[in-house]
Amino acid sequence: MKKVLVVMGSDSDLKVMEKCVDRLKSFDIPVEVRICSAHRTPAVAEELAKNAASNGFGAIIAAAGKAAHLGGVLAAYTTLPVIGVPMATSVMGGMDSLLSIVQMPKGIPVASVAIDGADNAAILAAQMLAISDEALAAKLQQFKAGMASEVMAKDEKVKAQFA
Amino acid sequence: MKKVLVVMGSDSDLKVMEKCVDRLKSFDIPVEVRICSAHRTPAVAEELAKNAASNGFGAIIAAAGKAAHLGGVLAAYTTLPVIGVPMATSVMGGMDSLLSIVQMPKGIPVASVAIDGADNAAILAAQMLAISDEALAAKLQQFKAGMASEVMAKDEKVKAQFA
Amino acid sequence: MKKVLVVMGSDSDLKVMEKCVDRLKSFDIPVEVRICSAHRTPAVAEELAKNAASNGFGAIIAAAGKAAHLGGVLAAYTTLPVIGVPMATSVMGGMDSLLSIVQMPKGIPVASVAIDGADNAAILAAQMLAISDEALAAKLQQFKAGMASEVMAKDEKVKAQFA
Amino acid sequence: MKKVLVVMGSDSDLKVMEKCVDRLKSFDIPVEVRICSAHRTPAVAEELAKNAASNGFGAIIAAAGKAAHLGGVLAAYTTLPVIGVPMATSVMGGMDSLLSIVQMPKGIPVASVAIDGADNAAILAAQMLAISDEALAAKLQQFKAGMASEVMAKDEKVKAQFA
Amino acid sequence: MKKVLVVMGSDSDLKVMEKCVDRLKSFDIPVEVRICSAHRTPAVAEELAKNAASNGFGAIIAAAGKAAHLGGVLAAYTTLPVIGVPMATSVMGGMDSLLSIVQMPKGIPVASVAIDGADNAAILAAQMLAISDEALAAKLQQFKAGMASEVMAKDEKVKAQFA
Amino acid sequence: MKKVLVVMGSDSDLKVMEKCVDRLKSFDIPVEVRICSAHRTPAVAEELAKNAASNGFGAIIAAAGKAAHLGGVLAAYTTLPVIGVPMATSVMGGMDSLLSIVQMPKGIPVASVAIDGADNAAILAAQMLAISDEALAAKLQQFKAGMASEVMAKDEKVKAQFA
Amino acid sequence: MKKVLVVMGSDSDLKVMEKCVDRLKSFDIPVEVRICSAHRTPAVAEELAKNAASNGFGAIIAAAGKAAHLGGVLAAYTTLPVIGVPMATSVMGGMDSLLSIVQMPKGIPVASVAIDGADNAAILAAQMLAISDEALAAKLQQFKAGMASEVMAKDEKVKAQFA
Amino acid sequence: MKKVLVVMGSDSDLKVMEKCVDRLKSFDIPVEVRICSAHRTPAVAEELAKNAASNGFGAIIAAAGKAAHLGGVLAAYTTLPVIGVPMATSVMGGMDSLLSIVQMPKGIPVASVAIDGADNAAILAAQMLAISDEALAAKLQQFKAGMASEVMAKDEKVKAQFA
Repeated sequence: MKKVLVVMGSDSDLKVMEKCVDRLKSFDIPVEVRICSAHRTPAVAEELAKNAASNGFGAIIAAAGKAAHLGGVLAAYTTLPVIGVPMATSVMGGMDSLLSIVQMPKGIPVASVAIDGADNAAILAAQMLAISDEALAAKLQQFKAGMASEVMAKDEKVKAQFA
Repeated sequence: MKKVLVVMGSDSDLKVMEKCVDRLKSFDIPVEVRICSAHRTPAVAEELAKNAASNGFGAIIAAAGKAAHLGGVLAAYTTLPVIGVPMATSVMGGMDSLLSIVQMPKGIPVASVAIDGADNAAILAAQMLAISDEALAAKLQQFKAGMASEVMAKDEKVKAQFA
Repeated sequence: MKKVLVVMGSDSDLKVMEKCVDRLKSFDIPVEVRICSAHRTPAVAEELAKNAASNGFGAIIAAAGKAAHLGGVLAAYTTLPVIGVPMATSVMGGMDSLLSIVQMPKGIPVASVAIDGADNAAILAAQMLAISDEALAAKLQQFKAGMASEVMAKDEKVKAQFA
Repeated sequence: MKKVLVVMGSDSDLKVMEKCVDRLKSFDIPVEVRICSAHRTPAVAEELAKNAASNGFGAIIAAAGKAAHLGGVLAAYTTLPVIGVPMATSVMGGMDSLLSIVQMPKGIPVASVAIDGADNAAILAAQMLAISDEALAAKLQQFKAGMASEVMAKDEKVKAQFA
Repeated sequence: MKKVLVVMGSDSDLKVMEKCVDRLKSFDIPVEVRICSAHRTPAVAEELAKNAASNGFGAIIAAAGKAAHLGGVLAAYTTLPVIGVPMATSVMGGMDSLLSIVQMPKGIPVASVAIDGADNAAILAAQMLAISDEALAAKLQQFKAGMASEVMAKDEKVKAQFA
Repeated sequence: MKKVLVVMGSDSDLKVMEKCVDRLKSFDIPVEVRICSAHRTPAVAEELAKNAASNGFGAIIAAAGKAAHLGGVLAAYTTLPVIGVPMATSVMGGMDSLLSIVQMPKGIPVASVAIDGADNAAILAAQMLAISDEALAAKLQQFKAGMASEVMAKDEKVKAQFA
Repeated sequence: MKKVLVVMGSDSDLKVMEKCVDRLKSFDIPVEVRICSAHRTPAVAEELAKNAASNGFGAIIAAAGKAAHLGGVLAAYTTLPVIGVPMATSVMGGMDSLLSIVQMPKGIPVASVAIDGADNAAILAAQMLAISDEALAAKLQQFKAGMASEVMAKDEKVKAQFA
Repeated sequence: MKKVLVVMGSDSDLKVMEKCVDRLKSFDIPVEVRICSAHRTPAVAEELAKNAASNGFGAIIAAAGKAAHLGGVLAAYTTLPVIGVPMATSVMGGMDSLLSIVQMPKGIPVASVAIDGADNAAILAAQMLAISDEALAAKLQQFKAGMASEVMAKDEKVKAQFA
């Protein structure tokens, strides 16, 4: 099974990104977690991205904040899909991170999820791998059904509370 | 080979999204193009998304503007990866479309590309399909090399012009 | 008397939306409160909206945050007026929620109130029902007069304090 | 039948707002169109709003741009529902108009539609009147079905074009 | 001597606006402080503004937040200069208040100071009154010199601290 | 009678600011128009501001765009009221100019009018001078009445057009 | 004398950046102009930056738009000062470019000039080189005096025009 | 060796800017720290900037918030490179400060670093001085290598933690 590479620009992003790792693991997707800065360790970024496909990775998740170049720098060196997670910042709530990630030029996409959307990055990566993996697709459907049940349970409770 | 479903909220989006269809075809990816409004034809949206996987689609690209709910509405009914293309608008240049697409809640991701990023949506979809398709992966690498050559040719020209 | 349907995307919105329910009840308007996610329980959303008119509802209030599609999804399935309450978020203070709610395409309006404007959503719903309900219209006028009195009492106090 | 009062801050708004008047008339809703400035003719605004209910109006639509106070000023003098249409401007595409309209304080709501959303303002007003008018409700359902048919016709065409 | 009328939309604005009142008093400018809502007590606003000149006021300071119409509503009923103080809010830090105040239409200006700029509103009002009051102008020059001295004293201290 | 000093950062601002000069002249207010850059001719700015009061000016109007420091720099050298006119730019429609002008620090206010609000800057300056000039105050009231008449004439026309 | 390296992400940036090259040449600063994409030719970017110092460059100017990573990617591979020029885009007028350039993480600065500030990038680079080059410093002072003269000539003309 | 002048608009900026001073000292760069307000002590600003070059300074760092004119005012009086540090504020997280600093007009650049980017301002100043100072350039390379090592150490730790 293809693995997912989770890269963060700083270990301060771990608190948010642990949800991403946990979610990937909940789907039994093998994951490798790395700290790598687009600007402070660009050579490491290059190595990680260049070798990701041959090292058995099927997708890359890159979390970064502010001038969040990490996803773009990794995408420059691979044709694997790269998912960017914009970290919340104090500048309009992370609009700097979001725009730096999502506004990629023609030819080199980075797939952006919501600001601090660590969980959804994992689900999106799983959806990508599930295109050719029916067992994983089934797990995703089960997960989706579970979410619906949770919401419906809350609905029952609230409906009754205000009846 | 898995197909890609390209859905637009309005036929006025075609002008931008033709680049997406063209790029997918350049990779020999079979594509189906549909007009479907999250709000005016929600039942069609539901049908399209629910049956996408069984109809042989591997990924969905949804282009929409303003309160761009289309990607989210499709994602609600499938576990296939959904790529959202925010259409440029006059409100901060399409910030309304972008935020409506990218800020999806936990559990239901939509992968956002740049505003009017029709071409990159196609490339991203190709990258997803290429996870399990080495021939397509090779085409993507070729495409990437071609882009690099183009830039380098321009570099030569400009370098000489100002030397 | 027509009822008002109050729907929230998440039970975490209850804290803000209780003011809405309380205000509706203060006008003796019957209310039903539901949790329903546009993306996690789309079928429930569809059912709620499709049957709202025949179930005796006169208006729908939908509270949601971030990519706040709930109001639009409900509006897609009904011709009852839908009021959207954008929940405050950390992205520019809820600008993501506001734009996702207010920027609806031609043909399917959602009436947006202020960010976290739970109270005003209730008053607006009451104003709609009062178009054909003189008793309710009288209650609204009384409520308005009461607000004016409160402000004037504070004015007296402050005027004296600084005299 | 209740009438709808359409008020504009300036006659330059007419070009956008004619769609609103046309839509109301298409539903056979009687309409009165007025030019009234919250700041240049405040006494007229006060008169219009104070007497709107007794003059047979069921809802008010107020279009204004920039510091778009018109809707709020009208709402101050009536308990009829007031719908605000933010006019597009060069400041972030009309964000000044939108925020001035939608961010009303507790107690005095203005229902905001999209920037330049003249058509939707009319539909929303019709939805309000239709709460107690089954014939109008039927017209709205017919209108909605018509929109769906239009989208589906375009879908057929585009689907065939790219098949 | 002309008085200054300080009006607030809500008594919750007092905490910020007390600095304004204090500053006016420090220049021995007579001041009257009022609570008045553009939307909840519009008739009071009208009265205050209409009679301000004949009641001996030379300038009006209006503090309001969100859809901050108060300054504009007062300016509609007077030709005295009106200074608007945008209250900080959670929407982009008060950008809603600022735009609602500063973007007034042609013919009816409101002079906006910084978000939460209570102190500067007082100084600006004093500058207006000082156009024809040399004693007040002298106080303003003294105040300005005092500020410079304070900054220079801090400069000395910091310069030494890091020498 | 006190004069008004109108300063622009660039002669490209003249097109917008001519309305300001025309309006001042329409009130028979003597005006001097200058081009002066806060950054390119700071010494001229200093001279203009330092001597403005003794040269018979009662108020200063400063128009500037982008990092619009001109108003602030003039205000640093005078205690006359300084009115800032933010010039429209391509950055969010002039939000850079607006924030650079309005967000002045405690102690040194600049009174901001709307983006490109040249006309209102003149009216505001007239209002300031009119505090101690009853003849000018009467002209302002006449001007205000004239505006109301214009709006009411348009109202008559539009009302009839759609009746 | 140290050279300045001017790099653009795309040849479409040339139209704006020619002013930069012209200005550098006007100071007799040797310049090399290159097209290089952070994402399409990352290896070229790496080479350019790594060898810039040893190739005789004293500063780098990088112009890029949207997710404008070029300056940051170059800065990752050199300790020469890197000046970023955010290209205007349709997203809030280039706010995406600006934030992607200016919000660099701790340790790797990029010096941002104004959106489309090609001319100022050249002047800033010249100022950097002039720290240790008195002849260049003299040219900069002369240039500055020239600008002042131009403004003062315009001032004379406008002052007379409105006298 | 050339010194660096660090100027702050207020002593409240010291908490952020101490990192700047510390970083400069870590490179053995002589530094002078001053408090100086563009608006309250403009004459001091003028003196500081006019004499900076002759007093042995090679670069100026100016930190300011809100309508952050300090950098521009200093740049008006010198041809030394001026680095602006936008202080975080509550208005969109410091977007007011950033735009006031970065959007300088043609001819007078200010080099903007990130919001609260005190550390990077110091590094940028060091890079400027290092253009003609090989020993300092070597220190910067060492500093850069140290940062890379730190990131790689964290990478090792996190990689192991999740293996």
